[in-house]
This record gives sequence, structure tokens and C-alpha cells, in this order.
Amino acid sequence: MPLGEFDLIERYFSRGGGRRDVLLGVGDDAALLEVPPGQALVAATDTLVEGRHFLAGAPAESVGHQALAVNLSDLAAMGANPAWALLSLSLPESDEAWLKSFADGLYALAERHGIALVGGDTVRGPRVVTITALGFVEPALALRRAGARAGDVLYVSGWPGEAAAGLEALRRLPMPSPDDALVRRYRFAEPRLALGRALRGRASAAMDVSDGLFGDLQKLCAASGVGARLDLERLPVSEELARRHLPPECERLVLFGGDDYELLFTLPRADAHALEQELSGTCELHRIGLIESSPGVRCARHGVPEALTGGGYDHFA
Amino acid sequence: MPLGEFDLIERYFSRGGGRRDVLLGVGDDAALLEVPPGQALVAATDTLVEGRHFLAGAPAESVGHQALAVNLSDLAAMGANPAWALLSLSLPESDEAWLKSFADGLYALAERHGIALVGGDTVRGPRVVTITALGFVEPALALRRAGARAGDVLYVSGWPGEAAAGLEALRRLPMPSPDDALVRRYRFAEPRLALGRALRGRASAAMDVSDGLFGDLQKLCAASGVGARLDLERLPVSEELARRHLPPECERLVLFGGDDYELLFTLPRADAHALEQELSGTCELHRIGLIESSPGVRCARHGVPEALTGGGYDHFA
Repeated sequence: MPLGEFDLIERYFSRGGGRRDVLLGVGDDAALLEVPPGQALVAATDTLVEGRHFLAGAPAESVGHQALAVNLSDLAAMGANPAWALLSLSLPESDEAWLKSFADGLYALAERHGIALVGGDTVRGPRVVTITALGFVEPALALRRAGARAGDVLYVSGWPGEAAAGLEALRRLPMPSPDDALVRRYRFAEPRLALGRALRGRASAAMDVSDGLFGDLQKLCAASGVGARLDLERLPVSEELARRHLPPECERLVLFGGDDYELLFTLPRADAHALEQELSGTCELHRIGLIESSPGVRCARHGVPEALTGGGYDHFA
Repeated sequence: MPLGEFDLIERYFSRGGGRRDVLLGVGDDAALLEVPPGQALVAATDTLVEGRHFLAGAPAESVGHQALAVNLSDLAAMGANPAWALLSLSLPESDEAWLKSFADGLYALAERHGIALVGGDTVRGPRVVTITALGFVEPALALRRAGARAGDVLYVSGWPGEAAAGLEALRRLPMPSPDDALVRRYRFAEPRLALGRALRGRASAAMDVSDGLFGDLQKLCAASGVGARLDLERLPVSEELARRHLPPECERLVLFGGDDYELLFTLPRADAHALEQELSGTCELHRIGLIESSPGVRCARHGVPEALTGGGYDHFA
């Protein structure tokens, strides 16, 4: 029997988050939340559309994970402590098995980071998921895109390109194993919240890589009024990626693939080495280039300039 | 020429809101916002799907208005001061005329209430609009659903039913005039923000009427652990509604119609008369019944009990 809208919210989306700063959660007209004194609110929203941001027929658990993860990645890129989320869910029918699995994926990630789901809306329509993630950060320490200066050292975290390779595997293979490492990386990539916090007050600029490293680096440079030299031979290529793709293909995936939720950031040159050592306990960090004063992103391989084509992902291009 | 996603945000959704509490708005990974000390954050999110919450081919200006209004109505129902909004927009194509008109409708309402659009996401997909509205309120004064007590007097603001009549006119008539009073009321209903603020610390319970007065009253009673007697002869029927519909039809529209963004609230009996006088400057207020201890909503006409069928709007019923 199909559930009504209100039963649906009660049954699947009312798990308490155990946060004392939620004065009023799901069930009233709006949520009432306490931002700690001295902290600024951090707010981001992202939408996933079936057939565009996730494949038709994708496991609901992974859709629930991704919808929250893409937002937490934005909070990570600000150095924020995530706290609360609001969910808007448009679904063609109230399929209980799908909903249960979706909620499991969403709550697994939320609970790992102590995030409470405090409100939302469920409507009938095409399968579209929007989450707004809220958190907080001391404003003077927040990471921004617009702080990179010439001479800063450019870094990317982790192994970008793996998620895009996983998505390509899903599109290419009739029946990829759900345990495939790259497929799992695409479906359940972890936002870099710990790294974002560790970069607070240290990185001169940061953003998350959501639309591809190359295009996102262009945005970071434009926001900071600088340019960059990207050292192609320093791009991180994971063992798994290298095992399954030829080198030019690996490079394309690392430069233009999205969905990994890695962070792209810059450290002031004088502190870079020490900070890199200190932060390396958080996750793998890769020095991939240098900020320069001249606008634009220039690529080089072992010091030899190299032209690059293509750009980041643009939903309306 | 179609605009790319990033141009689109820059061109249509980057008007500054002139709020000094926006430390960082559109253009970074997330917004940075300052909640005033001592105030709780109030957060609500609502989604409109084309063909369900607005008609296919509806003027984009009205869609922009409605998407924000439905959220501001939730904030009004908490007694909140609205401050910021995030927009998630899924569109089949980047139609510039549609976007301009949509942005005009949204910003007209936002600017009237001093609200800044601080972030969002634009994606390609079915036409679905999600807005998250953020505001603040002193937590002890926030309006909640769960405060009504037996003996409290029940009120509704304004003229519920007009918006539903406007929607029915749009569905029925091949070419209703855009200047039709009921059509305008449906498309450009005003959230009751001033009333919500005036009710702070005074109303024992409040919620907005979004899914129909009768169903929403049931929810308010359930949240408060009380019941209500609804006096059918006291239901407000506007002159325009009475002029165009027979009395039983008017009653149906008032009881079960949504989209008016009116507030349903209760005042303690001892203060009710004085408060009603004091608040009547804000907007029309209608005393429509009484809170009782026995659960459920009972209808009466001139004191004679009357059974009622039907319920509020349920997107998955």
C-alpha cells in the first residue's frame, strides 16, 4: 500500500540526530537551530537529477549517500563543521524499498559525521533530490576560493579521477560488480571534512573538485585574481586507475572527472612543506603546481609547456 | 545562444541583497552568514514540480514568486525574520526569457522582505524548483504547532480559498485573464511575515495553511495533543469568492484549498479579544473556532454538529 506523504516523512526521515543544537527538527513548519556564538553559518545546496547526476536504476542507497556527500563536500571546502541537513525529495511513486535504501545511505553518511536531518519536503514528480547542508565555522578561519597568491603551492587531496572511472565503468559494462573499487568510489566517495577542518586558517584558498580538477582550478584562479602552473607529471594517478586505464586516459580522468569530492587548495610557500607534513596524517596530499600572478592555467610536463583542451563539467553547455 | 551554468548564475542570480550579515554569497562553495547573537536559525525547504505545484506553461515570474513565497510562509509560521535563501533550479534548457522572468518574480518578493539570495545550484533536468529559506527568531518566542491548549481561541488570517479558486479558474478556463483577482491571488499570494512576527510570544500555536485549513488544523491539534471545534458559519469567505461560487463551493475551497499562505493560530482565551484588536492592524483575522481537550476536529454550524469529509492535500495519497 502506498504511504501518504506524512507517513513517509515520519517513517523514513525522522531519525533523531542526537544533537542538542536542534531545538525543533522534522515535524513543524521549519527547523529551529542553534548556531554556536562566534561562528558563522555555512550553507550549501546541491541537486541530483536522475539520468544526469545518477544513473536511472542506481541503487537508492548510493543516491542517498551522494545527495548528502556532494553538499558536505562544499562544507568541507569552507572548512566548516557540518551540523544539519534539509532534504527535498521528488519521487514518481512512494516505493518503500527505494525509500528505505535511500534513507539508509543518507543516514549512514549523516551519522558518521554527526549530522541531523532537520527538515524537508517530499513531493511527487520526477526523481530529483536536493539537499541543503548547514554547518558553521569561525568566519576568520573559513576557507574561500579567493585567497590564492602568486607563489602559493597548489595541492589536491586523494585520488581524483577514480569516481569518473567508476561512472564510465557503469555506463560501459552491462553488469559491473557493485564491489568494483572504482564503482564504489563513484557511488560512495567520502567528502573531505577532516581535511577541510585541518586547513582552516592555513590554506590561502580552497574549493572542492566537483566539476573536474582543471575547470575547478580555473575557477579558483579567477576568484583569486591569479593564474597557475599545473605540473602534469605530478597529477596523482591511483594504482587502481593505472591498472585499468592507459596513461593518457588516466590523465584525462584526473583532470576532467568529477564526483570525487577531493579538495583543491593552496598553501603559502613558506609554510607549505611543514604544513604538508603535518596534514599528511589526514589523507594523501599531492603537490601539483604553483600559483602565478599571470591569469589562466598553464600546463607543463617536466617543465615543458603543454597545451590542454577540454574543460570542467557544465550542466548547460 | 544558450548560456552555460556559470554564466547563468552570474547573470540572473547574483543580485546583491545589501545585507551586511552575508559574509560570502553566491560564487564560493557555500555561503557564509551571520546569525545575530541570541537568535536561533530557522530553516525551511519546499519544492515545486512543474505540472504538480505549478501548471505547465505558468508565467515564470509567478513560479519564481511561489517558490520563495511557500518557504517564507513556513518562516512566517515560526514568527521568524527571513534573511537568506538558497535556490536550486532544474530546467530542461537555459531559456533566457524564462530565467529573466523567474528571477524577476523571485527577487521582487525577496527584495520586499529584505532577503538575500546567497547560493544555489542550477542543473539540467525536469522543471523543478527547490528553495531553502533561512531566517532567525529568539527561540523562546518562536511559534510552534505544539502549544495549543483547551480553551484557546482558533484564528485564521485573511481569505483562504481564494488561491485554490484561482487555480481552478486556470484549469477550467481556456484563457483566464492574468488580471483576474483570484488568479493573481493564486500566483502571487503574499506570505504573512508581518503577522507571524506580531504573533511571536503571543500565539500559543501557529502553522501556515499550505495543504488546506481543515487538514492543517488536524495537524496542529495532533501536534498539540488537543482537538478543536470548527465553526463553519465563521469561515471567512471573501467577496470575490462569494461573487463567483455558490456557498457550498466556497466552503469547500476555504476548508480544503491550499496555496494562500495564510496562518492558522491559537490565542489564549483570556487575551484573545485584546490581542485580536491589537493584531487587526496587521491583516484581517477571523475567529473560527475553539480548542478543546478531546482529540480530533469537530465541525459545527451555528452550534449544531455537522460531519465533514475530505482532507488536506497529500502528495502521495
